[in-house]
Amino acid sequence: MMNRARELDAADPLGPYRDRFHVPEGVIYLDGNSLGCLPKATPDAMRRVVEQEWGDGLIRSWNDAEWFTMGSRVGAKIAPLIGAAPQEVIACDTVSVNLFKLIAAALQMRPGRKVILSEPGNFPTDIYMIEGLERQGLATQRLASRDRMLDALDEDVALLMLTHAHYKTGEIFDMAALTKAAHDAGALVLWDLSHSTGALPVDLNGVGADFATGCGYKYLCGGPGAPAFAFVAQRHHVDLKQPLTGWFGHARPFAFSDEYEAAPGIERLQCGTSPILGLTALEVGVDLIAEIGVDRLYAKSRALSEFFLECLGELGVLHELVSPAQSERRGSQLSFHHPDAYAICQALIARGVIGDFRAPDILRLGFAPAYLRFADMAEAARHLSEVLASDEWRRPEFSQRAAVT
Amino acid sequence: MMNRARELDAADPLGPYRDRFHVPEGVIYLDGNSLGCLPKATPDAMRRVVEQEWGDGLIRSWNDAEWFTMGSRVGAKIAPLIGAAPQEVIACDTVSVNLFKLIAAALQMRPGRKVILSEPGNFPTDIYMIEGLERQGLATQRLASRDRMLDALDEDVALLMLTHAHYKTGEIFDMAALTKAAHDAGALVLWDLSHSTGALPVDLNGVGADFATGCGYKYLCGGPGAPAFAFVAQRHHVDLKQPLTGWFGHARPFAFSDEYEAAPGIERLQCGTSPILGLTALEVGVDLIAEIGVDRLYAKSRALSEFFLECLGELGVLHELVSPAQSERRGSQLSFHHPDAYAICQALIARGVIGDFRAPDILRLGFAPAYLRFADMAEAARHLSEVLASDEWRRPEFSQRAAVT
Repeated sequence: MMNRARELDAADPLGPYRDRFHVPEGVIYLDGNSLGCLPKATPDAMRRVVEQEWGDGLIRSWNDAEWFTMGSRVGAKIAPLIGAAPQEVIACDTVSVNLFKLIAAALQMRPGRKVILSEPGNFPTDIYMIEGLERQGLATQRLASRDRMLDALDEDVALLMLTHAHYKTGEIFDMAALTKAAHDAGALVLWDLSHSTGALPVDLNGVGADFATGCGYKYLCGGPGAPAFAFVAQRHHVDLKQPLTGWFGHARPFAFSDEYEAAPGIERLQCGTSPILGLTALEVGVDLIAEIGVDRLYAKSRALSEFFLECLGELGVLHELVSPAQSERRGSQLSFHHPDAYAICQALIARGVIGDFRAPDILRLGFAPAYLRFADMAEAARHLSEVLASDEWRRPEFSQRAAVT
Repeated sequence: MMNRARELDAADPLGPYRDRFHVPEGVIYLDGNSLGCLPKATPDAMRRVVEQEWGDGLIRSWNDAEWFTMGSRVGAKIAPLIGAAPQEVIACDTVSVNLFKLIAAALQMRPGRKVILSEPGNFPTDIYMIEGLERQGLATQRLASRDRMLDALDEDVALLMLTHAHYKTGEIFDMAALTKAAHDAGALVLWDLSHSTGALPVDLNGVGADFATGCGYKYLCGGPGAPAFAFVAQRHHVDLKQPLTGWFGHARPFAFSDEYEAAPGIERLQCGTSPILGLTALEVGVDLIAEIGVDRLYAKSRALSEFFLECLGELGVLHELVSPAQSERRGSQLSFHHPDAYAICQALIARGVIGDFRAPDILRLGFAPAYLRFADMAEAARHLSEVLASDEWRRPEFSQRAAVT
């Protein structure tokens, strides 16, 4: 198993990139889908923005260091990772706030329709942001399971809003088919790409998507609470109206006019002042992931998870896979059902294998392809096998739930 | 003039604090009300959060480094600067986004009333955020000049929303009187403290304010695009409903439930994942400003601007002050009207005196009391005098307007 892992690592074209990330000694990090590893170039970039651009440049850096256009610049760099044109993507706010803007924009573009259609068990914030607009009296939430999604797409639906790769199971939607079905029903489509961007190929313009948003701190390695991004297809830019009409989305913010006039392009999605420290770290992560390339990352992502399952098989580990068995139907993760998933996850963490637990009974192991090795798969599988075979996970210290897991 | 400045500096109890900030050589920085100077402790804090907490700690730092409660912790540290209790303030999102939440919350608490009352020429984003809710059909914007504000406070007004210290003129509102007038009219009050926090005393609970928000990157020295803060009076916590119901505002975010249940306290104002890098820098600034203390900062702020005007008088500089002449009626700034304010501002910047221009014809000089010296006032006054007396500001290179000023 370990020999085979070494062969695979030796042949891996992405092997050398591991050294571009800081992966702590003694850790097998299977949670890059929650918080991506630190690129080694990030500390220098942070020093530059803090000490030179802020410390020395002060207010002048809004022009001189091009802070003012940073949201657009970072967005343009994310665009090729998701099949978008550079002017269609902007880095700003959080996924939650961007969902609100885009749902509200969709409602405005489909007068007479109030239903936002999603699925139960979608990432909570996606559903909660519909609820926010529902409480404003502007939207009606409708949740349909995957097998009933097409039936639920009727003439009341303004927007179909789904997460491409499910946070818990990793199962992916057929973006092309669902986008087409939504359009056939007269609805718009918003894709949450939080668990896809930087690990899976996404072709927003290829499938004709209307809107998208996604996370900066997972596979894009932008750091804890990194700014998110938002996509709006070019064809909607002129008509796009969203309610978070802050000064950074104004056509001429420094005219200080009392009247809001939306910026002509994707910049109208901006609201408050750009978070420059967060965008600086995000840009480093995006540059590195873009350099490696999504196609290569995706190929390795599939190979990693397939090899991990092979190792489990070889070790005779009985498991109940929640993720789809075929790698092309899942994101860069494997999730397992176990009634004691929490304690097993804690026992693994104590061994240096960091995965995560998703309530109520899921052990989720993420395989960020940019910095993981096949040897990590073999080692992690061995640890999981040992934890399950022994009574190790039954130790009392592993059963207490922490506030955040 | 310079002798007097040296005497004042020698007697200044805040003098030693200048050394706790990085103030670039050769710069007299009169724009701390736009972007505050870098505290010298910030680079180490950023190294710690980036290299240790993110790099080594990875996902574990949400618990181990207390990232998860960081918004509340930083908010609690801001609270004493604005007369609030620790559990009434949270650091999150931007001023613009927080305005949206609080305006929407006020509308929800005053059913039947739709008017949001503010003044023309308020900071643009404040007015634009009303417009956003107006476009949603939920609010009606009403702008009244200061002398007509009380007349405009009728039974249709859900919320009076004003900026304590005006960004352009520095003129301050009587918070106690206006809060009382609004309450007498059955309206709620939201104070924008962006140009006050960290420089002027504010007593939110003393005046009985309902809501407030403010900026992290001005006098709080939190860095470019720092997270903002929001205040909600304790008495409103139970009833507070705001539409940006993201997962970080949930009572149990890691239960991953489909149903939104607001956190019991001020945390319900949070929306997306906390921006940890930005909050780290903000916390350093807040700690330092709190250590110096608002009362001492305010006393020095007034003394600085009074001395600056004295210097202008001594130098015989003719000027048209837009700010109130009495220092107790203005924020920590002096603004001057001049038809060529832009070129004058540029000429000053070329001399290392960084102030800013506010369209169409205002030269705004900010006096951040934490790191400015009386000698800076004398020097800046001399530069202004020379720029005005000579034709220096008429040079063509000073007349071109940059994108951001």
